[in-house]
Amino acid sequence: MFSKVLIANRGEIALRILRACKELGIQTVAVHSTADANAMHVRLADESVCIGPPPARDSYLNIPQIMAACEITGADAVHPGYGFLSENARFAQILNEHKITFIGPSAHHIEIMGDKITAKKTAVELGIPVVPGSDGEIKTEAEAKALATKIGYPVLIKATAGGGGRGMKVAHTELDIGIALSTARSEAKAAFGNDSVYIEKYLGKPRHIEVQVMGDGQGNAVHLGTRDCSLQRRHQKVWEEASAPTVPPEKREEIGEICAAAMRKLKYSGAGTIEFLYENGEFYFIEMNTRLQVEHPVTERITGIDIVYEQIRVASGEKLSLKQKDIQFYGHAIEVRINAEDPQTFTPSPGKISFYHPAGGVGVRVDSAVYQGYSIPPYYDSLIGKLIVYGRTRHECLQRLSRSIDEFVVDGVKTTLPLFQRLIREPDIIAGNYDIHWLENYLGKK
Amino acid sequence: MFSKVLIANRGEIALRILRACKELGIQTVAVHSTADANAMHVRLADESVCIGPPPARDSYLNIPQIMAACEITGADAVHPGYGFLSENARFAQILNEHKITFIGPSAHHIEIMGDKITAKKTAVELGIPVVPGSDGEIKTEAEAKALATKIGYPVLIKATAGGGGRGMKVAHTELDIGIALSTARSEAKAAFGNDSVYIEKYLGKPRHIEVQVMGDGQGNAVHLGTRDCSLQRRHQKVWEEASAPTVPPEKREEIGEICAAAMRKLKYSGAGTIEFLYENGEFYFIEMNTRLQVEHPVTERITGIDIVYEQIRVASGEKLSLKQKDIQFYGHAIEVRINAEDPQTFTPSPGKISFYHPAGGVGVRVDSAVYQGYSIPPYYDSLIGKLIVYGRTRHECLQRLSRSIDEFVVDGVKTTLPLFQRLIREPDIIAGNYDIHWLENYLGKK
Repeated sequence: MFSKVLIANRGEIALRILRACKELGIQTVAVHSTADANAMHVRLADESVCIGPPPARDSYLNIPQIMAACEITGADAVHPGYGFLSENARFAQILNEHKITFIGPSAHHIEIMGDKITAKKTAVELGIPVVPGSDGEIKTEAEAKALATKIGYPVLIKATAGGGGRGMKVAHTELDIGIALSTARSEAKAAFGNDSVYIEKYLGKPRHIEVQVMGDGQGNAVHLGTRDCSLQRRHQKVWEEASAPTVPPEKREEIGEICAAAMRKLKYSGAGTIEFLYENGEFYFIEMNTRLQVEHPVTERITGIDIVYEQIRVASGEKLSLKQKDIQFYGHAIEVRINAEDPQTFTPSPGKISFYHPAGGVGVRVDSAVYQGYSIPPYYDSLIGKLIVYGRTRHECLQRLSRSIDEFVVDGVKTTLPLFQRLIREPDIIAGNYDIHWLENYLGKK
Repeated sequence: MFSKVLIANRGEIALRILRACKELGIQTVAVHSTADANAMHVRLADESVCIGPPPARDSYLNIPQIMAACEITGADAVHPGYGFLSENARFAQILNEHKITFIGPSAHHIEIMGDKITAKKTAVELGIPVVPGSDGEIKTEAEAKALATKIGYPVLIKATAGGGGRGMKVAHTELDIGIALSTARSEAKAAFGNDSVYIEKYLGKPRHIEVQVMGDGQGNAVHLGTRDCSLQRRHQKVWEEASAPTVPPEKREEIGEICAAAMRKLKYSGAGTIEFLYENGEFYFIEMNTRLQVEHPVTERITGIDIVYEQIRVASGEKLSLKQKDIQFYGHAIEVRINAEDPQTFTPSPGKISFYHPAGGVGVRVDSAVYQGYSIPPYYDSLIGKLIVYGRTRHECLQRLSRSIDEFVVDGVKTTLPLFQRLIREPDIIAGNYDIHWLENYLGKK
């Protein structure tokens, strides 16, 4: 086991990792920017090193500075958290060259999953379902029609050079194919100077469902079930649930086992998340995150497993202690992300917390890195805490979430807590009837 | 279901009940003494009524004042919490006469279990194991010897009028009987003016093990497993665990089922705890508490069941929704009681909390009724909060407890948190090797 872990992150996730290290009897090193000298992860770590000024590129993303901090403190492993350097294959590689363990997968796995095209190819090879479509460019209308019939309507015609919705057209029936093809081509030509297009199945109201996996790099891997993270604003998740409420248990089990099998084949090491769109009972691979995720606590709550413990253990060379048959799922958990933002406009709201009293009591977990008197710096993302609530049923969980939000006090800055209090009262949320567009539509209407 | 519940208590348990009511969509009424006007349960309740000055007999124990508060607010039920009026059969009866539901068992059940002699008799009738002994007074040495041989040595010769250890003598072999009998008799005569004595099996190093039960008054009842509450100081529990670590699972199941069956026979309604001494694999009934207990959260954590929900549901006339076969136990939970006391001398330490930051993160539950700036009044018991920690194993739970205590900050008053930090490091505690005398001995040695 490691004797000293350097935590190359800040905020609530730095504290999350620090707690796991303390519990495992491992010494901790916090690194911090000059703006974070008073941060809680710094106060609670055994040692801390200042690695530069904000913004992040001059400190939390500064690999030489972090390597120097490892050198000074004699850390034998680095936990990167999420964001920052957590999916930086080069960082993993450099640590490796310095005989310091990167607590995460191999640089090779980060690399192949970091590139979307390689990732999709790898997923296909591993038997993970992907969005059906053409293997490459579509040349003719006849070719498009034949493939669309095979895939099933509606289909999406997309610029291969695409992005941001440009060069993207939906065909609902065969009659639409001709016009969709030519419009997509001309838009793509205008936008990207390249009129090549391809076809994919069109998903109108998908949900974002993801599977938590954990491997030991020795061919052992398990899944820890599903999460539904469809409630997003600008591709940022704001509310996450485990298990995915609208996916039937046997389907959860099935996709979980597909993912675990893929990880065994890959000899994947550490925690990972395989993300899918889900529509009409089918899963379609989007991407894999080769790191701990913000929303991992909902999985921890319904399984009782500490995911960070497992990350550290397998990184230290231990075999995976988890067996799939021993992993049970009980009850339901929801996490809401408490951002220091105006709950109406989502403008960041940094500043000093004049009063802080987190929710407590049965079924409530708070992962937060703030305290009364702490000043939230303006340089980083606005996540200041996560409220994770458990219930034996989803209904119980929602009731308890509402109660917890009511009693959670953060004064001095604005937070997104009031947004969640509104969401809990929405019939669609109560019914679990939402897709990845739901929140944007809801906010647009207000 | 009730529309408005009055909570006839204060402190963390008033808040605990208030939270359950909120989650179930029930309006809440707090009652409070003049000393508790700024208490958290008052701040968070929908309505509050001042019921008099401290001490408790003039407010929290003042039945007419509480009845008046019910009348004024139109509460249709009262939750008594623990302590105060929670085991007062007359209070339950008066509420009953006023058509207000007492959230607890019937006045009759409170009464028969409140009296130790009736309770033991009832336990025997219900098939609950009790300490073997003479049915009544022992007259002769021959009689004493015959019975002692039957029970097995060591035995205890006790004054029937006894109390406080006077008139109480241990006989380890038959040779001790004569002198023990005469000494106990003369001590009893001197202390109580009555020399009649009886015989009981002597337990030298018993543990305190209790079983949580829940019934609906309609003949349905379940058990929610065991707790070990052997760590006590002056008969006050300070540290509680679930499940009881040294009782083998099949023995836990067996005693649980005996208790549940007894509650079915009794048509018991609500939550209750059946307390035992446990030695050499045998359980010996001590008493039954016909109310919610301070340590109920450890059971909630390992079962996922909200005991207060269940209390409220069955009190409202619902059938018990829990089936024994659906109740599973996962992991381990420990609760430590945070008292505002000097951790060396146990002198109460009321006063103003100048900084408050509860522990957080995975596996941590905090039930506390204090906040930064709150002044702990000197009139009540010194319990200000409970830290409840979960682990997949007892070892994991202890590690997490240690980390949580380290990060729990209560400034301005002294608390018992440092005591627990010391206890966690004791080999006997780590091994789970402690009986009901362990803590007193440990504190005596320091």
